[in-house]
Amino acid sequence: MLQYLVRDELTQVNDVIVARMQSRVELIPTLASHLIASGGKRLRPMLTLASAKLCGYSGNRQLKLAACVEFIHTATLLHDDVVDESDLRRGAATANAVFGNEASVLVGDFLFSRSFQLMVEDGSLRVLGILSNASSVIAEGEVAQLLTNNDTSTSEDAYLEVIRAKTAALFAAACSIGAVVADRPNIEEDALDSYGRNLGIAFQLVDDALDYSAEQAALGKTVGDDFREGKVTLPVVLAYRRGSAEERTFWQKTLEEDDRDDEDFERAVALMNKHGSLDATIERARHYGEIAKDALGIFPDSDTKEALLGIVDFCVSRGH
Amino acid sequence: MLQYLVRDELTQVNDVIVARMQSRVELIPTLASHLIASGGKRLRPMLTLASAKLCGYSGNRQLKLAACVEFIHTATLLHDDVVDESDLRRGAATANAVFGNEASVLVGDFLFSRSFQLMVEDGSLRVLGILSNASSVIAEGEVAQLLTNNDTSTSEDAYLEVIRAKTAALFAAACSIGAVVADRPNIEEDALDSYGRNLGIAFQLVDDALDYSAEQAALGKTVGDDFREGKVTLPVVLAYRRGSAEERTFWQKTLEEDDRDDEDFERAVALMNKHGSLDATIERARHYGEIAKDALGIFPDSDTKEALLGIVDFCVSRGH
Repeated sequence: MLQYLVRDELTQVNDVIVARMQSRVELIPTLASHLIASGGKRLRPMLTLASAKLCGYSGNRQLKLAACVEFIHTATLLHDDVVDESDLRRGAATANAVFGNEASVLVGDFLFSRSFQLMVEDGSLRVLGILSNASSVIAEGEVAQLLTNNDTSTSEDAYLEVIRAKTAALFAAACSIGAVVADRPNIEEDALDSYGRNLGIAFQLVDDALDYSAEQAALGKTVGDDFREGKVTLPVVLAYRRGSAEERTFWQKTLEEDDRDDEDFERAVALMNKHGSLDATIERARHYGEIAKDALGIFPDSDTKEALLGIVDFCVSRGH
Repeated sequence: MLQYLVRDELTQVNDVIVARMQSRVELIPTLASHLIASGGKRLRPMLTLASAKLCGYSGNRQLKLAACVEFIHTATLLHDDVVDESDLRRGAATANAVFGNEASVLVGDFLFSRSFQLMVEDGSLRVLGILSNASSVIAEGEVAQLLTNNDTSTSEDAYLEVIRAKTAALFAAACSIGAVVADRPNIEEDALDSYGRNLGIAFQLVDDALDYSAEQAALGKTVGDDFREGKVTLPVVLAYRRGSAEERTFWQKTLEEDDRDDEDFERAVALMNKHGSLDATIERARHYGEIAKDALGIFPDSDTKEALLGIVDFCVSRGH
C-alpha cells in the first residue's frame, strides 16, 4: 500500500541514489551498490516521501532528501557490519566480507559525506540540523550498544535507550523532514517525528524477535545473527529477567563468556518460548506502534495517512 | 610564530573541542580525548584562525569552525588507523589498539556528525558546502589510497591525486573558510584555498619522506610505519622508477607480496638514499610550498601573512 502510493517517486529516488553514489574511484559505486541494490526495503526513504505527501507538499525536494536518508542508513549499515564482524546480512554476504573492512569504513564515510553534500544542495539549514542531530545520536546509540553487548544485566530501559538512538532517531528524522519541506507548523513536524520515532522502536523490537523466530527459520530466513554476535536484545533481557538462576547461568555463559554453539541457540529459543519473551517483545512493539498511529491523529484522513497507519500494522504483524 | 599569533584563540578552540566532544555515552569523550589530547599540532584549526585573521575578520565564528575542522581531521585519523590496522601513531598506542576497532569507527562517526552539527549552529551553507565537499573528497582519496597500497606501479601523478584528496582537501577547506566568515571576495577565498591545498601537498610529501629518515630515527622518532603497512608513497614511487630491475624485484617482494622485515626497511632506506628519492621528495614539496606562498601574494603584508608564509618554510624544512 505505502509502496504503491509512492512507487513513482521511489523510482526517482533510486535514480538520485544511483547518480549520486558515483565516483571516479570505481570501488565506491561497486561497493555501495552491493548494499544499496541488494533489495533493501527502502522503508526510510518511503517514509520521507509519504510524510511530505501527507503534509500536502507538491514540489520535488523530498526526492533528494529521501536519498540523503538512505545514504545515511547505508553508511550506518556498512559501519555496523564492520563493528559486528558480520559476514552475512539477511543471508547475503556483507560488503566487509566481500571487499574488506577498510573499504567498508571508507565507503560508509563517503556516503555519509555525500548525504551532507545533497542536503547543502537542498539548502535547508533546518533539514541539515535534523539529519546532523540524528547522525550524532545514531553514533552515540551504536557506541552504547557496544557497551551493552555481552552484558546480560542490561535493563529493558537501557536497551530502549539504545534502540531509540541507533534505530528510531533516523525514522523520526526521515518523517519530520516531510513536514519541513512542506513548510508546515511545528505541531505537524512534531507529530511526524513522534510517528517515526515510535514506528522505529516497534520496527527494531520486531526485528529483534524475528531473529529468534522458528517461523522465520521455517521460511528459510536467517535467524540467530544477534545470538551469534552476543547481542543483548529485548528477547534476551526478558528471558534473563524471567528465568531461573540456572537459566541465567546459561545466558551468562553464552552471551558474556562467548561460549555458544548451534545447540545453545536452540536452547535460547526454547527458553524464550518458555517465558513468552518473544510474544512479550511483540506486545511491546505493538504498544509503540499504537503511539505512532495516534501521533497521526491531527492529520485529516487521506490515502497517505491510511498507508502510514498500515505500515505500522505491517511492521508489527511481521512478528507473527 | 603562527602558534604565537593565534595562541589565545587556539585555547578557546580547545575549549570548544572539549565541550563539544562530550556525550552521555562516556566512552565517546574517553576515546576522543585519547587522540585529541595526545599532542596533535592543531595545524588545521590554526590555519582557519590565521586565515580569518588575514582576512581582517574580528568576530568569533572561526572558533567553532576551527573545532569542526579538527573534528573532521580526528574522525579521519580514527578511521585511518582502523584501515591501516595501526597499533602505533607517532610512537603512541592508537585508539583502535586501546579501545578496539568498533569503538574507533563509531566515535569517528560521532565526531564527524558533531562537526556538521557545529556547522549548522554556525549557520553558513557556504561553509557546510566547503566542508561536506572536502569530506567527500577525503573519503574518495582514502579509498583510492587503499587501491594504490601494495601497488608499486603507482605513478607520481596517481600518488599526487591521492594526497590532493586525502590530505590537501582539508587544508584547503580549513583556509578558505577563513575568507568565508570574513565575507571576503572570491579572489581571497580562492587564494586561501590554493595556499592551503599546496601547503597540504607539501606537508604530506615531507611526512612521507620523514617516515624513511635516518635523522628522525636518530632523534628517537618513529619511522617505517608506511613501509610496514605496504604504503606506496612518493619516496617509493621515485626509488622504484629510478631503480634497477633487481631493485624493483625488492620493492615488489616487500610491498606487493608483503614479505618484509626490519632488514628490508634498512635496504629500502639505502636504496632511497642511493637514488636521492628522499631529497627529491623534499624538493617536490618545496615546489608546492612555493606555490602556496605565491598564492598569498594578493594580501597586503602583515604579521599574519608572515606567519602563514613561515609555516610553509617550517613544514618543508622539517624534512632536513
